Amino acid sequence: MLVNTRRRTIEWGDCDPAGIVFNPRYFEWFDAASAGLFATALGMTKAEMIKRYAIVGIPLVETRAVFRVPCAYGDEVSIESTVAEFRRSSFDVHHRLLRADGSVAVEGFETRVWVGPAPDRPGGIKAQAIPEEVLARFAEAQGRTAE
Amino acid sequence: MLVNTRRRTIEWGDCDPAGIVFNPRYFEWFDAASAGLFATALGMTKAEMIKRYAIVGIPLVETRAVFRVPCAYGDEVSIESTVAEFRRSSFDVHHRLLRADGSVAVEGFETRVWVGPAPDRPGGIKAQAIPEEVLARFAEAQGRTAE
Amino acid sequence: MLVNTRRRTIEWGDCDPAGIVFNPRYFEWFDAASAGLFATALGMTKAEMIKRYAIVGIPLVETRAVFRVPCAYGDEVSIESTVAEFRRSSFDVHHRLLRADGSVAVEGFETRVWVGPAPDRPGGIKAQAIPEEVLARFAEAQGRTAE
Amino acid sequence: MLVNTRRRTIEWGDCDPAGIVFNPRYFEWFDAASAGLFATALGMTKAEMIKRYAIVGIPLVETRAVFRVPCAYGDEVSIESTVAEFRRSSFDVHHRLLRADGSVAVEGFETRVWVGPAPDRPGGIKAQAIPEEVLARFAEAQGRTAE
Repeated sequence: MLVNTRRRTIEWGDCDPAGIVFNPRYFEWFDAASAGLFATALGMTKAEMIKRYAIVGIPLVETRAVFRVPCAYGDEVSIESTVAEFRRSSFDVHHRLLRADGSVAVEGFETRVWVGPAPDRPGGIKAQAIPEEVLARFAEAQGRTAE
Repeated sequence: MLVNTRRRTIEWGDCDPAGIVFNPRYFEWFDAASAGLFATALGMTKAEMIKRYAIVGIPLVETRAVFRVPCAYGDEVSIESTVAEFRRSSFDVHHRLLRADGSVAVEGFETRVWVGPAPDRPGGIKAQAIPEEVLARFAEAQGRTAE
Repeated sequence: MLVNTRRRTIEWGDCDPAGIVFNPRYFEWFDAASAGLFATALGMTKAEMIKRYAIVGIPLVETRAVFRVPCAYGDEVSIESTVAEFRRSSFDVHHRLLRADGSVAVEGFETRVWVGPAPDRPGGIKAQAIPEEVLARFAEAQGRTAE
Repeated sequence: MLVNTRRRTIEWGDCDPAGIVFNPRYFEWFDAASAGLFATALGMTKAEMIKRYAIVGIPLVETRAVFRVPCAYGDEVSIESTVAEFRRSSFDVHHRLLRADGSVAVEGFETRVWVGPAPDRPGGIKAQAIPEEVLARFAEAQGRTAE
């Protein structure tokens, strides 16, 4: 499956009085990494994605993180993100945040839903089937990176 | 002029590796304190304010903070907020963040604008005169607290 | 088991362009809620706790959240926190974030470790047995609230 | 004077319900940009800088921002940072955040102090003269970029 990678330097303001990254920061970065993964796979921005597929978004319904090694100010890290599984209308994203030495510092697991407007309730939302085109573009993007 | 006060405990995640509050946090708290000041003066939520006066909001155009004494994890602080000056369509908010001993740790100065939709440009915005009713409610609220 | 409750108003800056709370904010609040739970149970601040028990802290090793209902700007919410289980050197904290109507908007699950300095490695850390006194204080605090 | 540039993509979680960047985010980025400016000029990390010059840090004593044009989700921006003035023990940093079209969206102005341990008060801090070597390295770095 397509793996999208983003690099980041740990900033002073990301860290707490123990000198290590304050845990909510990892969830900020995982959220942005999921957006980046879809942008890479689909070749469009989130705004374009929302318009093209007439959806409301891909909201998070559950997330989990495992903290293996702390990161500190000045560390150069990378976040590798991939869709672990696509189901009918929901999917799982797996993030691995690696330190410069290749060790996995944090793992993140997100479950998101492909959500559109509810046909029968103005302002309401409803899970929808993930379009074949989206699955195809992820498969193609994977093909390109595997070449 | 009406002074609105909010209390807050400094949390672990508000602080940086030096053990003191990371400066952007103060701007988060001042933003919320300005919303709280208007809610107190007008007796309505921001959502109600936007609807009643048909505005887009009261965006910040300039802000400044002076850091006198650092705050650390566990400190109990209070933020005193007041409108220092109302002009035709803009106004200045002054915040003082005090420590438990009464010393002023941080001062904040915001300039905000009373903004509505532009009559001639769909989606555009335009500064508007602050309604007399708003000024009157601030004056009344001041009267109540001065009694 | 002792349940500690904190109230909070959702601020403008807590919310994203969809108008709902940006998920990392929940983890900020759960972190502070865990600190508040221990402060209530032990009757001391985190700084006092660290000194009294000669520990380094109670770092998070895993966390999970389930998002049931979104929260929006202006919502008044409460967070109920309790230790779901104490083990030898680790423990689980369960947080429930409730909206004003009593519905559970978000549930959080944290696993934390009672960590002290490693006896044989300067600067290193090591999981330690949670002191009997800590368990006793949680039990006593529970007794007080159950009365 | 040396100008250091950093690029950044505006993320979903940087923005508020109006769809524009929540103002404290700019102060986070300016703080990191100042650290980046010193790292570039001195050719060392902040940790190395603190050790080499035996200082405590370069804390902010005053900051101001002027918001000219809002930034929104997906915008590609750059932050140009320079020291506007070095004085004996304090200095001013000027940040300009530019949008892709070259327009200045936000300007930031920081006053920071070169601070070391107080010689006569354990744990205290005291402003110190900025070392000649630091001024020289900024001048050299400027020379390199001007070539």
